[in-house]
Amino acid sequence: MDVVVTGMRSTGELHIGHLVGVIDNLKKLQETYKSYFFIADLHVLTTNYEHTEDFKKNRVSVMLDWLASGVDPNKATLFIQSKVPAHTYLHLLLSMIVPVSWLERNPTVKEMIRDLDLKENASYGLLGYPVLMASDIILYKAKYVPVGKDQLPHLEMTREMVRRFNYLYGELFVEPQALLTEFPYVPGIDGKKMSKSLENDIKISDTEEDTTKKIMKAVTDPQKIKLHDKGHPEVCNVFTYHKIFNKEEVNDIERECRSGELGCVACKRNLANKLNEYLRPIREKREQLKNEIDKVEDIFEEGSKAASLVANATLEEALTKMNLK
Amino acid sequence: MDVVVTGMRSTGELHIGHLVGVIDNLKKLQETYKSYFFIADLHVLTTNYEHTEDFKKNRVSVMLDWLASGVDPNKATLFIQSKVPAHTYLHLLLSMIVPVSWLERNPTVKEMIRDLDLKENASYGLLGYPVLMASDIILYKAKYVPVGKDQLPHLEMTREMVRRFNYLYGELFVEPQALLTEFPYVPGIDGKKMSKSLENDIKISDTEEDTTKKIMKAVTDPQKIKLHDKGHPEVCNVFTYHKIFNKEEVNDIERECRSGELGCVACKRNLANKLNEYLRPIREKREQLKNEIDKVEDIFEEGSKAASLVANATLEEALTKMNLK
Repeated sequence: MDVVVTGMRSTGELHIGHLVGVIDNLKKLQETYKSYFFIADLHVLTTNYEHTEDFKKNRVSVMLDWLASGVDPNKATLFIQSKVPAHTYLHLLLSMIVPVSWLERNPTVKEMIRDLDLKENASYGLLGYPVLMASDIILYKAKYVPVGKDQLPHLEMTREMVRRFNYLYGELFVEPQALLTEFPYVPGIDGKKMSKSLENDIKISDTEEDTTKKIMKAVTDPQKIKLHDKGHPEVCNVFTYHKIFNKEEVNDIERECRSGELGCVACKRNLANKLNEYLRPIREKREQLKNEIDKVEDIFEEGSKAASLVANATLEEALTKMNLK
Repeated sequence: MDVVVTGMRSTGELHIGHLVGVIDNLKKLQETYKSYFFIADLHVLTTNYEHTEDFKKNRVSVMLDWLASGVDPNKATLFIQSKVPAHTYLHLLLSMIVPVSWLERNPTVKEMIRDLDLKENASYGLLGYPVLMASDIILYKAKYVPVGKDQLPHLEMTREMVRRFNYLYGELFVEPQALLTEFPYVPGIDGKKMSKSLENDIKISDTEEDTTKKIMKAVTDPQKIKLHDKGHPEVCNVFTYHKIFNKEEVNDIERECRSGELGCVACKRNLANKLNEYLRPIREKREQLKNEIDKVEDIFEEGSKAASLVANATLEEALTKMNLK
């Protein structure tokens, strides 16, 4: 079976954007591939090394969100990056064969430095995150990595590292292919990109009450002010949510909004109910798992051991090829 | 007992410059400190990743040279860097808190890039070697590191990393102090710096015959051409060797050279004998150890396990402080 590897940074509770994006994709992948899914806690340090107080909590949140949503440890190997030290060892080995100029030209790092206003404070580890990423992938000899279009240049860098290693020391690593994945766009309740830091997100772990409150606050079509004004669903946030979470009624809603029949308050209340229904089984499962936290941690502990076996074997091969064994 | 850590790159057989420099110093340190001496094979990759064919042979050479010269596994922990994976893990963690600007300003890296004509090919690992060096040292909570004056800036960088880590995550690492060490200057037989790559070195592992041949070829005072010309020991290579390896006769030799009494051929032949005498017990021991190569490798294997215990314990502490455990 072909191997697929993908990781997710543990920066806090996941939101409904993650749910219908990354997580739904994990659930598809685990049915088809030999899957390695990991919580990329070491990658979080590249941009957030100053405040690690919530690291453990955040890691647990992702575990709960994944398991509650149907990511299945019987179908995929679920692990924590920091618990598989081979990632850090291969990172060092690769660092020796990667010209620093490749990394300096990485547009994403440049963007990050600008967006986070890091300037002189950009860390050596941030500059080198594509090296860690390559290590994450090739240790498992992954054939595929699910990526969005914007991540293609990173994957190409991984492929370049593979070619360079294989050229220098002999064939070992596999050049991973992109599994181009389009995620549905889920805006935040303010219409901007849904994000924890913008506080415009609806979390898997929110209560039904909070979810309803957030939806009732959501920005809609700015031209529909009074109840019977004619609406423009194509510019309405809430309509975007209906399209994802209320597929059955979406055509009726579109028609009634355009005609002015349906007011925003009723429309939002309907959405809140539908969204809560959609999330209810996941949330119930999540609550249940919270009461069995040791079991949850064990799943990832076991997964990390299983991943280590594979990763260590590959690392040994790499060390042998390099005459370090 | 205070801890001291020092490493040596494994680039091939050691020469007499290493012997009266680094190795003699190791022998002093092992008497006074809790000593960790390691073969820095991973560091070799920073400048020589393209040709690793001789890596294993070179590592064994250093093991033999150390043990034959009196570096004592009963007094110091002798280990191989690549066999203590904690070095690579802490390297990754430190990479996250070290601004890349610190590394870019490192004058030694700039020099290396110039001297090796690396330009665009300088690797990410070369840029970051001070991070690996810091990891090597602080994993053992070393109080002292023996360094020459020229290496003080690197040690200061390690100290900065310690302060930064301790400030961010709480007190853990120890700021290592310099144990300023002056090594006797041993020129090559051509008068330039003794170095394997210049082929002007006399190796511990050379035969007596080769040693004599090399000494007989050595450059001396260019103004002393005929046998009874008056010599100038202060500019003579061979005289520098007499000062180190023939202390008893050095005053007589100086007088007889200056007066024109002593000719260069006789002077060199005398030196060759004295140098071979000096090296004989070391070489005999080395030959004997070559016949017990498994025993030699076991010593470093055991040392690497002992070092790993200490290094892993420190790494666990670091991960705990960073909330990754």
